[in-house]
Amino acid sequence: MIEFKILKKSKKSEARLGVLRTSHGLIKTPCFVPVATQACVKTLDSQEILETKSQILIANTFHLFFKPGDNLAKNLHKFMNWSKPLMTDSGGFQVFSLGFGKDFNFGKVNSERTDIIQKSYQPKSIKITNQGVWFSSPLDGKKFFMGPEESIKIQERLGADIIFAFDECTPPRASKEYIQESLIKTHNWARTCLKVKKSNQALFGIIQGSKYKDLRKQSAIFINSLDFDGFGIGGDLGEKKSITKNILKNTIPYLDFKKPRHLLGIGKLDDIENIIKGGIDFFDCTVPTHFARNGIAFIYSGYLDLRKRKFLKDKNPLDEKCSCFVCQNYKRNYISHLIRAKEITGLKLLSFHNLYLFNSFVEKTREKIKKGLI
Amino acid sequence: MIEFKILKKSKKSEARLGVLRTSHGLIKTPCFVPVATQACVKTLDSQEILETKSQILIANTFHLFFKPGDNLAKNLHKFMNWSKPLMTDSGGFQVFSLGFGKDFNFGKVNSERTDIIQKSYQPKSIKITNQGVWFSSPLDGKKFFMGPEESIKIQERLGADIIFAFDECTPPRASKEYIQESLIKTHNWARTCLKVKKSNQALFGIIQGSKYKDLRKQSAIFINSLDFDGFGIGGDLGEKKSITKNILKNTIPYLDFKKPRHLLGIGKLDDIENIIKGGIDFFDCTVPTHFARNGIAFIYSGYLDLRKRKFLKDKNPLDEKCSCFVCQNYKRNYISHLIRAKEITGLKLLSFHNLYLFNSFVEKTREKIKKGLI
Repeated sequence: MIEFKILKKSKKSEARLGVLRTSHGLIKTPCFVPVATQACVKTLDSQEILETKSQILIANTFHLFFKPGDNLAKNLHKFMNWSKPLMTDSGGFQVFSLGFGKDFNFGKVNSERTDIIQKSYQPKSIKITNQGVWFSSPLDGKKFFMGPEESIKIQERLGADIIFAFDECTPPRASKEYIQESLIKTHNWARTCLKVKKSNQALFGIIQGSKYKDLRKQSAIFINSLDFDGFGIGGDLGEKKSITKNILKNTIPYLDFKKPRHLLGIGKLDDIENIIKGGIDFFDCTVPTHFARNGIAFIYSGYLDLRKRKFLKDKNPLDEKCSCFVCQNYKRNYISHLIRAKEITGLKLLSFHNLYLFNSFVEKTREKIKKGLI
Repeated sequence: MIEFKILKKSKKSEARLGVLRTSHGLIKTPCFVPVATQACVKTLDSQEILETKSQILIANTFHLFFKPGDNLAKNLHKFMNWSKPLMTDSGGFQVFSLGFGKDFNFGKVNSERTDIIQKSYQPKSIKITNQGVWFSSPLDGKKFFMGPEESIKIQERLGADIIFAFDECTPPRASKEYIQESLIKTHNWARTCLKVKKSNQALFGIIQGSKYKDLRKQSAIFINSLDFDGFGIGGDLGEKKSITKNILKNTIPYLDFKKPRHLLGIGKLDDIENIIKGGIDFFDCTVPTHFARNGIAFIYSGYLDLRKRKFLKDKNPLDEKCSCFVCQNYKRNYISHLIRAKEITGLKLLSFHNLYLFNSFVEKTREKIKKGLI
């Protein structure tokens, strides 16, 4: 059960300030949601995650189903020692990634394939039916089936505060005809998810429709007509900022104003203010932790590549405007040394800093909404 | 500058209870010294290391000389954000490892080579002279020379509280004649180290002599005759418990009782009480962190291999007698999941626990000396 209260709606944009109440505590929105794919925000322990000002995490249904298995990770809060709110995604993205893997470009323009995916196309490595998807386990090749019912059952076992409907996540090069067919499945599955759910977890319905204005509208109107507790906006969103902006413009107006809205899998630092102005309350993204593990520190004016030799002589904190534990205690020269010397501690310090900076950035954005600046 | 005060000498063994005063704080002895090879205890940040009850760390002269370079890591305390006492080793072990690498068996009986290293033997990859060692950089193959003077200069730049003399670390299969020749160099270098040192860092002389009773005695008497602030006992010690015991028996009686004694690179959990009873005040070892990164948790009754599937169902803490942060917050099932799922966080949790357990074990051993039990 969740309760969402909107404290203020911006006059300048679709941005709003809110509070989401869950049985694991309150969340101030807009809110960044760090990704804990395997019940763990990579490199950090749960105490550290709290100290990064994180309010809620999103774990991965698909990954936990295989490792350690949803029965073994049952009651996820307790399993991972996280007493604050949790989300789980539906596993849809990962299952469809097994079929369309190379098509999901994760924010980069995909130069490999440009041919259009036609209506009724079936990828080779998975089998999409009206009921769900047959796929092979990435661990041992064993056949599995996942559809709306399976996804909800797993998510009920994991017991997150907020769960997501099972949807087809379509690749950017899918034709309009393919997306139209896909939406029929996604919408049917949304209904099934609502029907089979027995827990009192909050269930968010997912809006798809790719980059097509009319299909996004159609999907938003349909999902909004069902009894969901909130909305997820899905699709391969990171490709171009203009696409994301248009998707929000063609979706947000058709959604119940009172319900929370989550943008799935997006949020570079320079995306954040735009998506919040587009009307988003929650967004999850691996960018801060993924980039940290590649030696990148985000700072308010951009980023630093700590793999570079020049930082070995730089005795400044990562960002002097940042008040995180890392910036209070360590300098760029030491962190650069750790990264260059392949010390795990370096990855941890950067992950901590990046999450803290993202959360602080969103905190500042909440302040801006409060003050009527955006 | 250090001041060492012995608070109690055991009547049952050579064990003693002491306090070492340094300009970075007091250390209770006997004391375990975690290894911070590259100015970092692997997987942990300096705040966490403090929380493992660690009192002093040992960093590696050889590694820091190459990465990031001793000039860039100058003033190591500040560089690595560690305000407690620090040691640096001399780099001797690493330099000689480049020549005798496969001969140093790190606690395992070496089955590969059994032929004896004869007098005046020169390994192929390094050139040992009376002044020091020529070797190739492991980074780019460039030729370098390290001897007592170079080692002390680097260690002065790093600025640890306690530094070690440059010695030849001989492999276990060296003949007695080889060791005899080697001791001449090690003893000459000891004198040079004392002569060239300009800082007020405490300098420990190193006693070698392999497994030969008379050579250990000879080395102990010689090193004891010089003006060192303390002693390091070196050599490939971990091979057999009986060898270590005999080495201590043939060394300790010839050392100034009032000076601290450090056993270099040894300390499995079941070694600790014996070496303390043998008269050791300090010992460093990578075992707790190295084993942690292989999924092993030490517990008071032995160890757990968290890679094993059975632990996924085990909801006990690693050790219910352990009061560390990890045992208070996480269960075996979750840590096992993290290790099996290759999550860095798992390695960190195990490293933290293992260090805390080792430090607690030594703390309990200090209590035993206090109570006259050992």
